[in-house]
Amino acid sequence: MRALARYLPILEWGRGYNRTVLTSDLVAAMIVTIMLIPQSLAYAMLAGLPPEVGLYASILPIFAYALFGTSRALAVGPVAVISLMTLTAASSVAAPGSPEFIAAALILALLSGLMLLAMGILRLGFLANLLSHPVVSGFITASGIIIATSQVKSLLGVQASGQAMPELVSTLVSSIPQTNLPTLVIGVAATAFLFWVRKGLKPLLVKAGLPPRPADLLAKAGPIAAVAVSTLAVIAFDLEAQGVKVVGDIPQSLPPFTVPLFDAELWGKLAVPALLLSIIGFVESVSVAQTLAAKKRQRISPDQELIGLGAANVAASFSGGYPVTGGFARSVVNFDAGAETPAAGAFTAIGILIAALFLTPLLASLPIATLAATIIVAVLSLVDFKTPREVFRYSRADFAAMMATILVTLLVGVEPGVIAGVALSLALFLWRASRPHAAIVGRVPETEHFRNVKRHKVFTDPRVLTIRIDESLTYLNARWLEEFVLEQVADAPQLRHLILMCSAVNAIDASALESMEAINHRLSDAGVTLHLSEVKGPVMDALERSHFLDALTGSVFLSQNAAFDAVVALANAEEASNGEPDPLLARGMI
Amino acid sequence: MRALARYLPILEWGRGYNRTVLTSDLVAAMIVTIMLIPQSLAYAMLAGLPPEVGLYASILPIFAYALFGTSRALAVGPVAVISLMTLTAASSVAAPGSPEFIAAALILALLSGLMLLAMGILRLGFLANLLSHPVVSGFITASGIIIATSQVKSLLGVQASGQAMPELVSTLVSSIPQTNLPTLVIGVAATAFLFWVRKGLKPLLVKAGLPPRPADLLAKAGPIAAVAVSTLAVIAFDLEAQGVKVVGDIPQSLPPFTVPLFDAELWGKLAVPALLLSIIGFVESVSVAQTLAAKKRQRISPDQELIGLGAANVAASFSGGYPVTGGFARSVVNFDAGAETPAAGAFTAIGILIAALFLTPLLASLPIATLAATIIVAVLSLVDFKTPREVFRYSRADFAAMMATILVTLLVGVEPGVIAGVALSLALFLWRASRPHAAIVGRVPETEHFRNVKRHKVFTDPRVLTIRIDESLTYLNARWLEEFVLEQVADAPQLRHLILMCSAVNAIDASALESMEAINHRLSDAGVTLHLSEVKGPVMDALERSHFLDALTGSVFLSQNAAFDAVVALANAEEASNGEPDPLLARGMI
Repeated sequence: MRALARYLPILEWGRGYNRTVLTSDLVAAMIVTIMLIPQSLAYAMLAGLPPEVGLYASILPIFAYALFGTSRALAVGPVAVISLMTLTAASSVAAPGSPEFIAAALILALLSGLMLLAMGILRLGFLANLLSHPVVSGFITASGIIIATSQVKSLLGVQASGQAMPELVSTLVSSIPQTNLPTLVIGVAATAFLFWVRKGLKPLLVKAGLPPRPADLLAKAGPIAAVAVSTLAVIAFDLEAQGVKVVGDIPQSLPPFTVPLFDAELWGKLAVPALLLSIIGFVESVSVAQTLAAKKRQRISPDQELIGLGAANVAASFSGGYPVTGGFARSVVNFDAGAETPAAGAFTAIGILIAALFLTPLLASLPIATLAATIIVAVLSLVDFKTPREVFRYSRADFAAMMATILVTLLVGVEPGVIAGVALSLALFLWRASRPHAAIVGRVPETEHFRNVKRHKVFTDPRVLTIRIDESLTYLNARWLEEFVLEQVADAPQLRHLILMCSAVNAIDASALESMEAINHRLSDAGVTLHLSEVKGPVMDALERSHFLDALTGSVFLSQNAAFDAVVALANAEEASNGEPDPLLARGMI
Repeated sequence: MRALARYLPILEWGRGYNRTVLTSDLVAAMIVTIMLIPQSLAYAMLAGLPPEVGLYASILPIFAYALFGTSRALAVGPVAVISLMTLTAASSVAAPGSPEFIAAALILALLSGLMLLAMGILRLGFLANLLSHPVVSGFITASGIIIATSQVKSLLGVQASGQAMPELVSTLVSSIPQTNLPTLVIGVAATAFLFWVRKGLKPLLVKAGLPPRPADLLAKAGPIAAVAVSTLAVIAFDLEAQGVKVVGDIPQSLPPFTVPLFDAELWGKLAVPALLLSIIGFVESVSVAQTLAAKKRQRISPDQELIGLGAANVAASFSGGYPVTGGFARSVVNFDAGAETPAAGAFTAIGILIAALFLTPLLASLPIATLAATIIVAVLSLVDFKTPREVFRYSRADFAAMMATILVTLLVGVEPGVIAGVALSLALFLWRASRPHAAIVGRVPETEHFRNVKRHKVFTDPRVLTIRIDESLTYLNARWLEEFVLEQVADAPQLRHLILMCSAVNAIDASALESMEAINHRLSDAGVTLHLSEVKGPVMDALERSHFLDALTGSVFLSQNAAFDAVVALANAEEASNGEPDPLLARGMI
């Protein structure tokens, strides 16, 4: 039962379900449903898919996540960045809007779902670590800019294409003369209204006496007002005849049962995009889920989240949808509206199902410019210029990875952008791991502490050198270690003893062990004895399984303080006996 | 002048050149020349190339390395593993022995040379770190087994092909019935003789009164005796008529001037093999050069070695050769024979040039079985079963990478073998970096030391928890850090203060900083104050450039001992004032 509950969290929260929780969940579901209807249509359009696909992607996937997911407030469905990635990936194999394009979107959802499930079962959630915060943040900012730019064409009522900025901007600029004036009026008005709703409406409602939370939720329903007013305007003034493009007829139906095409070549072409999309979606979703869980001291399990999102995507692929993930905006609304359990998600799904069955005729005259305005206002909140500044001040390496992600995403495309960010982060990490920090240290007078001779006034002895290595010793820095230690010795003619202070050495791998053996051997040829101090427990356990400790010319000391005292005494004794070290003393046996 | 000397080390050693050094160099060159003639022919044959190509690859490349290399004893030329890699790479685009195959070998040498030069100029020598000791050792052992097996066909006088063991063994076994008896006799006799020379001759000569060094060098000349005797046997008994294959006519000429073909498609196909071959050759060569330099307290510069080897390979590509690197056996002979400067290499090149011009007619009747015997005896010394056992005992992760390299190399091929080893090492490294070691620590009674509560009897306080993180905090483990810290807190209801002991934290990147901020925030929500202790200088410098220290709920302490005392006092004060912490006290300002 407990093991089963790990894979089916519903068994856990389902037991405590009662009428109070039900009421909270129902209220949250109603609010989220109202918000989701225009958003689902808009994101499907952004992905190059018919609008109803957005509704379908918000029904079964939510049920699937409610069964397998661990977050209580996460709302799964179409999101902006994943829609953009779907557009890019499916465009590489078919023309947007074509039946092949819709088929490619289903395959992407299935592949992504299977990959997420596999990663969850194999507990490969740690792979998401390869995306650092700056890379993800840079990617989302760049995607937000691309998405907003791509929607400007719908505000102007013109054609423009391209998935990276250079093409997007040039096709957009060249089509400005074809601008449709009524479309522009609707688009600009809707955008301005939505920005005002976001910034100005809530303070106004609070001033009018409404408590902050309801005021906030009412402001979140702004898009519905824009949808209603602009649809009525189109009908009242027959704007369609004047060239205003509208959503058109949406079939009234349950989500269709779809079977993704199996075509090995197509799957092969879509595999890498599906993987990138899965990982980006997972990272986004988990960070939203973690933020919300922490607020209520709940916990989520990242490996189980992979299974929840995987199931949601597989469900999307069999019900006419496209790739989905946990969205930030909708999850926050869900949480703020008081959702207590994943059942709120299920109720939302029922709400959207009702919309798909009965409300779509009302949306036939909805202008596409209004949907574009919704997208623009939503994604501009993703664009973040503050984080790059802070990262720049904190770490140039992280900033380099972030800028590479932003620039490659903007100039080349979303997939190369993610890959460039991950590759550069990894290369910088490996480069740093291969040139670790190390310091010559000496004793801080009157203490047992040893500090960097360059940063502190410390006591040293010309016959004894202590090197503190500030990194685990691995194959990446084994060669560096040999070079660094032997250089220090070459520059110190009086030197007789070298202490490697290992307080920051958390592991020594087989390559580094070979280098330590080489160092011990070469120092011995040079008449220098090698000692170790402050070796950590697990490292010492490993060394004891090798021949290194037998070959070591000096001793291993528990503390650097004891090492320094003993070794200075040894050097004194050697000088007294005319430079001939007492072998027993040198091995620390006296 | 000094800057120039960095790129042209000859300007440094050339100044001190005198008659004594000249004599040493000349003697060493003569010995190495005698050893190199049969070896060069044999390795060219192993690479699927005409025998003279081996001689050409031992002339100009040596001059080029003598100009640019930093090792004084390294002998550059054809080596076994690189010959095998050349065979594999060139076979993928042409049939061994064909003119296209020879052209491919020239392209490989040029590409490899240009890549090494580029890495040297860009100082990318650290990329060679990606090959760990166990991977290189496993690769060389597996290559040795493949090479030895591939030569058995020449001992039997049969045809067999394949670059990985399964095909090699099956074609060999099926051709056993075609064994040529005279060839087998020569092959087995030569192999047995060479093994005896290696193991038994030197002790015999020493017993006969010869000093050890000349005895050793004389034993190294054994292959020449095998070449001479077997050639004479072929001529005396007309064994060619009985089916013994011989080297045949070798053109008597200077190295030809060759221009590698430029064909973008072919270059594209050979680029990855050339890169692998370059890095394997560089790693091998540098470790030989470092070992020899350390014996005489000389230094080599790895980045300059890239330039030396790059120049040697470019020279090979323009003089009818094939990829070369610094060989272990020949370099050791050169060193033992007393080579003092790279001039010894230049003299060796002149010796081989003389051989190419005048001695090749003597080699026409040399049986190929003798060359195969030379290769088998040489490469079996590369096969090492001791290291895998030691690595197994020391580290399972390193052993896994090593075995993957050995098995994939044997079963699939040399290039997949190297790639599998590098990829697995990297994956294991990243996995470990993403799950670092961390310990709850307490004070060792009567000391200022804090140790793992699981390994030592230590003093702790239920209201104060100290976590020592044994790794740098990076994007790879940022998520782990959040989960680990919050789990500890969830399991300790009495907890009021958490100290992160950062003595082993050598860096905190932007992702980890964000996680630290999240931890600080969430702990504060849970009524737990966060403190840091023993933060290293460079890490503190970085933290001071962020907002973290302003937001930190607790203080930063120089030593863990001071931190523990202050925080326990703080907890006592809080209890006395009925749980309400004094804000000034909590910020460490009292």
